[in-house]
Amino acid sequence: MRPSGRATDEMRQVKFTRDFTCNAEGSVLVEFGNTKVICTATIEENVPGWMRGKGKGWVTAEYGMLPRSTHSRMRREAAGGKQTGRTQEIQRLIARSLRAVVDMEALGERQVIIDCDVIQADGGTRTASISGAYVAMYDAVQKLMKKRKLKRNPIHGQLASVSVGIYNGKSVLDLDYPEDSNAETDMNVVMTSGGNFIEVQGTAEGHAFTRTEMNDMLELAEKGIKEIIVKQSDILGLE
Amino acid sequence: MRPSGRATDEMRQVKFTRDFTCNAEGSVLVEFGNTKVICTATIEENVPGWMRGKGKGWVTAEYGMLPRSTHSRMRREAAGGKQTGRTQEIQRLIARSLRAVVDMEALGERQVIIDCDVIQADGGTRTASISGAYVAMYDAVQKLMKKRKLKRNPIHGQLASVSVGIYNGKSVLDLDYPEDSNAETDMNVVMTSGGNFIEVQGTAEGHAFTRTEMNDMLELAEKGIKEIIVKQSDILGLE
Amino acid sequence: MRPSGRATDEMRQVKFTRDFTCNAEGSVLVEFGNTKVICTATIEENVPGWMRGKGKGWVTAEYGMLPRSTHSRMRREAAGGKQTGRTQEIQRLIARSLRAVVDMEALGERQVIIDCDVIQADGGTRTASISGAYVAMYDAVQKLMKKRKLKRNPIHGQLASVSVGIYNGKSVLDLDYPEDSNAETDMNVVMTSGGNFIEVQGTAEGHAFTRTEMNDMLELAEKGIKEIIVKQSDILGLE
Amino acid sequence: MRPSGRATDEMRQVKFTRDFTCNAEGSVLVEFGNTKVICTATIEENVPGWMRGKGKGWVTAEYGMLPRSTHSRMRREAAGGKQTGRTQEIQRLIARSLRAVVDMEALGERQVIIDCDVIQADGGTRTASISGAYVAMYDAVQKLMKKRKLKRNPIHGQLASVSVGIYNGKSVLDLDYPEDSNAETDMNVVMTSGGNFIEVQGTAEGHAFTRTEMNDMLELAEKGIKEIIVKQSDILGLE
Amino acid sequence: MRPSGRATDEMRQVKFTRDFTCNAEGSVLVEFGNTKVICTATIEENVPGWMRGKGKGWVTAEYGMLPRSTHSRMRREAAGGKQTGRTQEIQRLIARSLRAVVDMEALGERQVIIDCDVIQADGGTRTASISGAYVAMYDAVQKLMKKRKLKRNPIHGQLASVSVGIYNGKSVLDLDYPEDSNAETDMNVVMTSGGNFIEVQGTAEGHAFTRTEMNDMLELAEKGIKEIIVKQSDILGLE
Amino acid sequence: MRPSGRATDEMRQVKFTRDFTCNAEGSVLVEFGNTKVICTATIEENVPGWMRGKGKGWVTAEYGMLPRSTHSRMRREAAGGKQTGRTQEIQRLIARSLRAVVDMEALGERQVIIDCDVIQADGGTRTASISGAYVAMYDAVQKLMKKRKLKRNPIHGQLASVSVGIYNGKSVLDLDYPEDSNAETDMNVVMTSGGNFIEVQGTAEGHAFTRTEMNDMLELAEKGIKEIIVKQSDILGLE
Repeated sequence: MRPSGRATDEMRQVKFTRDFTCNAEGSVLVEFGNTKVICTATIEENVPGWMRGKGKGWVTAEYGMLPRSTHSRMRREAAGGKQTGRTQEIQRLIARSLRAVVDMEALGERQVIIDCDVIQADGGTRTASISGAYVAMYDAVQKLMKKRKLKRNPIHGQLASVSVGIYNGKSVLDLDYPEDSNAETDMNVVMTSGGNFIEVQGTAEGHAFTRTEMNDMLELAEKGIKEIIVKQSDILGLE
Repeated sequence: MRPSGRATDEMRQVKFTRDFTCNAEGSVLVEFGNTKVICTATIEENVPGWMRGKGKGWVTAEYGMLPRSTHSRMRREAAGGKQTGRTQEIQRLIARSLRAVVDMEALGERQVIIDCDVIQADGGTRTASISGAYVAMYDAVQKLMKKRKLKRNPIHGQLASVSVGIYNGKSVLDLDYPEDSNAETDMNVVMTSGGNFIEVQGTAEGHAFTRTEMNDMLELAEKGIKEIIVKQSDILGLE
Repeated sequence: MRPSGRATDEMRQVKFTRDFTCNAEGSVLVEFGNTKVICTATIEENVPGWMRGKGKGWVTAEYGMLPRSTHSRMRREAAGGKQTGRTQEIQRLIARSLRAVVDMEALGERQVIIDCDVIQADGGTRTASISGAYVAMYDAVQKLMKKRKLKRNPIHGQLASVSVGIYNGKSVLDLDYPEDSNAETDMNVVMTSGGNFIEVQGTAEGHAFTRTEMNDMLELAEKGIKEIIVKQSDILGLE
Repeated sequence: MRPSGRATDEMRQVKFTRDFTCNAEGSVLVEFGNTKVICTATIEENVPGWMRGKGKGWVTAEYGMLPRSTHSRMRREAAGGKQTGRTQEIQRLIARSLRAVVDMEALGERQVIIDCDVIQADGGTRTASISGAYVAMYDAVQKLMKKRKLKRNPIHGQLASVSVGIYNGKSVLDLDYPEDSNAETDMNVVMTSGGNFIEVQGTAEGHAFTRTEMNDMLELAEKGIKEIIVKQSDILGLE
Repeated sequence: MRPSGRATDEMRQVKFTRDFTCNAEGSVLVEFGNTKVICTATIEENVPGWMRGKGKGWVTAEYGMLPRSTHSRMRREAAGGKQTGRTQEIQRLIARSLRAVVDMEALGERQVIIDCDVIQADGGTRTASISGAYVAMYDAVQKLMKKRKLKRNPIHGQLASVSVGIYNGKSVLDLDYPEDSNAETDMNVVMTSGGNFIEVQGTAEGHAFTRTEMNDMLELAEKGIKEIIVKQSDILGLE
Repeated sequence: MRPSGRATDEMRQVKFTRDFTCNAEGSVLVEFGNTKVICTATIEENVPGWMRGKGKGWVTAEYGMLPRSTHSRMRREAAGGKQTGRTQEIQRLIARSLRAVVDMEALGERQVIIDCDVIQADGGTRTASISGAYVAMYDAVQKLMKKRKLKRNPIHGQLASVSVGIYNGKSVLDLDYPEDSNAETDMNVVMTSGGNFIEVQGTAEGHAFTRTEMNDMLELAEKGIKEIIVKQSDILGLE
């Protein structure tokens, strides 16, 4: 039995709220159950120095947690003077994932900057962030399209992300915090709407996992990601 | 005429939402018009090293802005590796203000840590933060009271804060961003429910201001703060 | 009774020594009793990047304390790797105050950089710094005038600063360290020679202060600032 | 055709040199072709503060590259004042992998600190580091065993790591730098001698990869890791 | 000919002013011509962690320059967030030199912390600092003696320091800034009153120097240091 | 008797291995007994900003120690976020020494960047680094000569470095770690093949040293440096 009473292949309730804040080109509140993340997408009409003059764009991401998004208060990274290794790992993952569905030449010399800020954490903040950031990026790029700044849509695919793992000996989908902190194996998967992989990051926390367990987890991930993609498509009006 | 069409002595709509997030002992979303700040209060059962063994508590505060709370994206302080002078000034102001209404001996050797995170900025983020932090702190202390950890209520007063200024030659109440960025004088005032001052910080941006102008601004501040205090009392169920 | 035996409206001895060091364009030792600060003004023929090409100048300031300017030794900020919030707050205040009396177009694309370094501290270091920095800036700008680099004098006003507060229930002028560390309210005021306000920063340390107390303190501040301005005028040969 | 002329399932020459430096409890030079990494294992008779008093040990790792281990000189991280996100990601991976084969209770309250320093880089530095670090850790723990400080061997498994990827449309084993910088997909795999997974980290650089491609890559990884484990066993005298 | 018109073996005017500031246990303004340094000595009744419980004391030093002590303004190290290599080199030299004349057991478990802050720079700031720091340390230790906190005087020698160099092909004593910035060789020497060496740091800036040149420079250093020691003895009332 | 059994004027075995790693323009493993340092020389076709447009080159150096090059593990500087004062002092010394034998106009607007990384430490790491860096720089400059990028050889001298000291009352050559940590005086000397001085840095650790002792140490240094220079010449094929 899962602590939440969910079936092993059951997602938490997934919800996207567009235009959550008013200044960013794209702004989405994404919820995976009690995990809530504000994802914004900013368009800047420049690229990092090393990319200038090549006619190509870039997608980058930053991630943070409000100090009291968690059960006990975490140190504020700005006060500590640096981002933890975990934070850097996550923001690199978010950016790399999104870049996989963007045609940088079609984007032109501009950047999409994603900010994912967790306001409430209950496991799966990185997979919620990726799934929500896609929606925010989509909205921001649509605004560029409407202003006729782009010749063609640089987003050539749709993606979402979910976590899977082995909890109490069983493969389970979309781990919440009580599961995540006790899982034997934890895997984050990013997939396209076409069912292919962008990222697979599996880690044995307790014992090494077998090929069979891996296959089971990938099945669950595929199921969950399909469901998230339906929600994204609904809110974005994609068929 | 004010850009928003408000009268010179008219506040923006002020709103407090309690229990905005679920982990903190106190969690409030405060809105002054389009300015939105998440204020949380955390109780920690320890004090900074220099205070230990004295039987007294402490109140401290941290402040941050989400990178895209503003019109153009601000640098994330955690990525830059330090908090700006402005951030430090504001968080010192928030903490100092709240400490003025807390009896540290009644609080005992524990800390109230306030976190104010701006998710949408339209002027007055520090005054909204102080006004919202009071509510969050109140809730957190009430939980301590219910757990019978305190002999008496350490909060011995109520406070709120508002900005006033001189805009286009007239004294105005509760400046929004278009006013704030063009004001000739900007003043932040923190007052108790009894009408006394906790902080007065007035700055001439353009020309020096006269004693008469100062008195006008203080009148407006008193009016605004009274209205905010009514809203706080309503939501907290204080008569 | 004040610890120093002064009357409630009595300043400490104020003294300005020009050309205290030989390299800066303006260099002043300012003394408010035992508080001693070296204020230098540097002219640099450039402005920060975000101001370039606008034909305007800028005034900025930095503040520091020698580690043993205080009773017990303070940590050297350069060794600690960052400036404290207090330091940043003070240097922002100094610069903002001086900018209020400088016409940036008349200054042209150059910077005045003020350095205030406290060599002996006995309360009121920020107000002494502002008062001394004005003299250093005046001297530095005079040198530019003599070199015929300026069409007209960019300094369009004179200012000084003093602290006032409530000590043992009475309003007092120009607090020294024993008073400052026990004051119930502490207020720093920057005024022009014309009697108008540039900055008012009042803080209740103990109990909230009333409108009457505020008025009393502002009267004292006005008296003290007038006396400092006479000393500045004397040494600068202004009538 | 691979740039090196290797077959798609062919490893580079793998070599371990024990006792490469004389001070560390374990010191190994590991070579995967032209990639050379010094791996040392240090035993410290203490654990981080948050682990004290629990009777358990810990394994941690740090990773670095000599500035001129690469084709063009990289900035020295110590001079830059921080470790990059990539460095932190790699050292977290190394430590997490090794912890999967160590029984922390059997280790007792002491730490194994792994240092992996790349002196020459030609792709696969993280997989070589993990494979070499295992040997260094093994040697260090053997010294503890010989000193009779441990009741039983805390290392309960053997592991190695290799990279696989899709290069020019084909799955290939053990990518060198020319392949790595042009691969369409890159996957790092850590497996036990029993054929189970400790880490799988696959990233689509160009296009999303299919389940079939993933399976092909995992086959290659399993083959390569078996070969590395034979080399480790040879040098350590394990049958 | 030297720019200043001095003879090759002629010191600048050396002057020590005791009790220059009022808070430190020892406070000296030292002047070598236009070079002016405030040297303070602080006694702290504790030692760094690694020295505790050994019954021994320690002497440490910090060094800084006011931003406008120099011809053109230097960056403030506290604002830059770190001390330069030059600063660290100098403060290590000052502390090491003073430690050579202090008996750490006689000092007991306490620290002497030296702060040398250059308020005006014209070459030779490190040698003036060492010479002045000796006087400040002497005064601070005398206060400990008067309070009967020490059984015997921990200072077992007297020292001073001067720079020598080769300028325009000739050995010269006590280089000022115009000489220092054009010297072919620059050597800082710290000697005891007994004529022995504590530090010799010679650097060829232009061409390598010969043994004969080295001997000439050491003669000059010995002469200069004797003169400084006489000044120190005069002001301290030593015969 | 020396701990190693060497005669007082006896060097440890000195060995240079060229082309130790394959990417740098010059790469040398230098060994002074058990002290082993990888020295690389990188040519970059640019100079620091303050030198641009002057037609001159520059030589700079960085130094580091692998964490476990020493008996007990040292903190990794990259993890700590800054280089220690000792590290900065050493890398400044290495660069300054090498610059003394390079004609910056002949080098042209390019940099030689030296990296010295200690992989095993047993005393004398800075003198081994300087001696090895010379060989690496020589090789790197030879490559520039072969590519006909230089009109004439910018290296106009040869140099090496050794430590000397007073150990157990006797002057000794080339101190290893057991001697270095107990020496009464420690002196590092850099000399040219012509027998002149580039750097002399002598420090009394215990008691002040006499002129006679200094002369004895300089004799030993000259002997040792001559021997190192022969080894350099042998490996570089200089007569």
